[in-house]
Amino acid sequence: MTSETQAPQRKVILTGDRPTGQLHLGHYVGSLKSRVALQDTHKQYLLLADTQAMTDNAHDPDKVRRNVLEVALDYLAVGIDPAKTTITVQSHLPALAELTLMYLNFVTVARLERNPTIKEEIQARGFGRDIPAGFLCYPASQAADITGFKATVVPVGEDQAPLIEQTNEIARRINHQVGREVLPEAAALIPRFGRLPGVDGKAKMSKSQGNAISLAASPEQVKEAVMRMYTDANHLKVSDPGQVEGNVVFTYLDAFDEAVEEVAELKEHYRRGGLGDMVLKRRLDGVLQGLLAPIRERREELAKDPASVFDILKQGTEQARLVTQATLDEVREALGMFRF
Amino acid sequence: MTSETQAPQRKVILTGDRPTGQLHLGHYVGSLKSRVALQDTHKQYLLLADTQAMTDNAHDPDKVRRNVLEVALDYLAVGIDPAKTTITVQSHLPALAELTLMYLNFVTVARLERNPTIKEEIQARGFGRDIPAGFLCYPASQAADITGFKATVVPVGEDQAPLIEQTNEIARRINHQVGREVLPEAAALIPRFGRLPGVDGKAKMSKSQGNAISLAASPEQVKEAVMRMYTDANHLKVSDPGQVEGNVVFTYLDAFDEAVEEVAELKEHYRRGGLGDMVLKRRLDGVLQGLLAPIRERREELAKDPASVFDILKQGTEQARLVTQATLDEVREALGMFRF
Repeated sequence: MTSETQAPQRKVILTGDRPTGQLHLGHYVGSLKSRVALQDTHKQYLLLADTQAMTDNAHDPDKVRRNVLEVALDYLAVGIDPAKTTITVQSHLPALAELTLMYLNFVTVARLERNPTIKEEIQARGFGRDIPAGFLCYPASQAADITGFKATVVPVGEDQAPLIEQTNEIARRINHQVGREVLPEAAALIPRFGRLPGVDGKAKMSKSQGNAISLAASPEQVKEAVMRMYTDANHLKVSDPGQVEGNVVFTYLDAFDEAVEEVAELKEHYRRGGLGDMVLKRRLDGVLQGLLAPIRERREELAKDPASVFDILKQGTEQARLVTQATLDEVREALGMFRF
Repeated sequence: MTSETQAPQRKVILTGDRPTGQLHLGHYVGSLKSRVALQDTHKQYLLLADTQAMTDNAHDPDKVRRNVLEVALDYLAVGIDPAKTTITVQSHLPALAELTLMYLNFVTVARLERNPTIKEEIQARGFGRDIPAGFLCYPASQAADITGFKATVVPVGEDQAPLIEQTNEIARRINHQVGREVLPEAAALIPRFGRLPGVDGKAKMSKSQGNAISLAASPEQVKEAVMRMYTDANHLKVSDPGQVEGNVVFTYLDAFDEAVEEVAELKEHYRRGGLGDMVLKRRLDGVLQGLLAPIRERREELAKDPASVFDILKQGTEQARLVTQATLDEVREALGMFRF
């Protein structure tokens, strides 16, 4: 009840994920952890963006379908509370599709092609000239998501900031045309920690790169991943001085070990020499096992009753339908479009 | 009742107009007349494509809104019978927006850019580099319209045939992916008469060119338009031999005068010389007045009670919602997308 009555004062956050795989430690550090905190101070909508996932997975809709449940399990397991956060499924919010089509009329093809995020992602996916039209257009879909919920805070990675700018451009064009602020502008909330590298030291942890530790990983999988973690290639003997910067084990300790002072001492010791990688890895393993054990347990418990999880999604989606439909009606009214 | 029970056997036609202005004699000859005939032999859906009209009228949604009623009045006035034809408003069929977004994932940007109809229309509208993304994407929206109603017959001008091809490409891609025919392919129905020239002799009658005779034109407006109609610039004296080809008055007589043999005689007489333009124009004026008087009368009658017209659109749209939602559900199911 408290959250209901406080809701109007709270800032609205929209965030979410493309359900294309189980979430991993990179998601935990980059977004999940802060979402668990933000749900106490904001009205938070969490979007399972399956429509958007189709823009580069149209050949494999089954993967997207399966992962709606997987990602929902991850959310609930890390502590997203459906009483505080509305979890919703994008493909079941027709108003977002309608807003997307409308917004596509307020942005040019050239502008979409200039979007740095889109440019990079097109390259990363190896689309070449064969870019699905839906993929080029997904910034308009994201603008629909953000404005559909009237979100003013959008947690995104630094590389995603141009998408918020694109959203605000569309909002401004519409607001300018109708002569008043129908759509609020949104601000990007860049995460404190940033991006967690893969266990192989590559810049990005990613399931498809095989360098991720998923939240559902077994104790053995976690240990195995930590043991093969990249440290300092020149740190051959325990007595050698080692490098802390770019050393994945230390990056992870910074991200997950709450004993900050002890980690600082370990860094100094490592730099001096005389501290072996195994000591550090065992410590990190302990930290990660401690973090993941309760998450894994909750996840396994929840997975036994998928119907209850779907009920949560259904309820969230019903709530989100009302909110997004109200925005669509308001935008159409403001623009002076046909209504019965 | 008869049309209800016969419906399953009848081929499904989808046709419609962007509501951006009152319909005129060009529409009558090119589409309206045959729609009135087709409603007796086909299950016909008539789409007021206001969403599509927004793709090049986003700056003026009010024009689109107003013309939903105007075009509906034109339909009813020429004899479209809501008991036989389902008249529906595109912006109120969310399943079409959802199908559009999905289809955008099954077509590349390059393919849309190669579409000859789109290329021509981009040029005609003077978009230059500033093509609204929605405009480039409208073939996917049209594919959603056609397949959403499972239409297999789509009456289009010859220049629009590439849009049907685009629709069928998307349908084939999806059918191929799911391994069975979920979406039927459609065939273009090219009108017998083709395009009516403007009263100034330009290839296309168009309200924006000021060379159109609208179905709602007053008797005086009709007469005035006929009197300034382009004939044969070299036919200066009544006794001069005149040219029939490219002579707009004869083109119109061919289109509207049912006394085909008399028109053939007039053509011969005109070619020989001795037949004045005024005689022809008076004849054409009589023919057009005879055609338009009952249409105008019915239109004025209907316009007195817009609520009844909206009721017709509402009922048609409710029916169309069921049909298009069923198609969306079926496509999602076939692709294996998430459903509660």
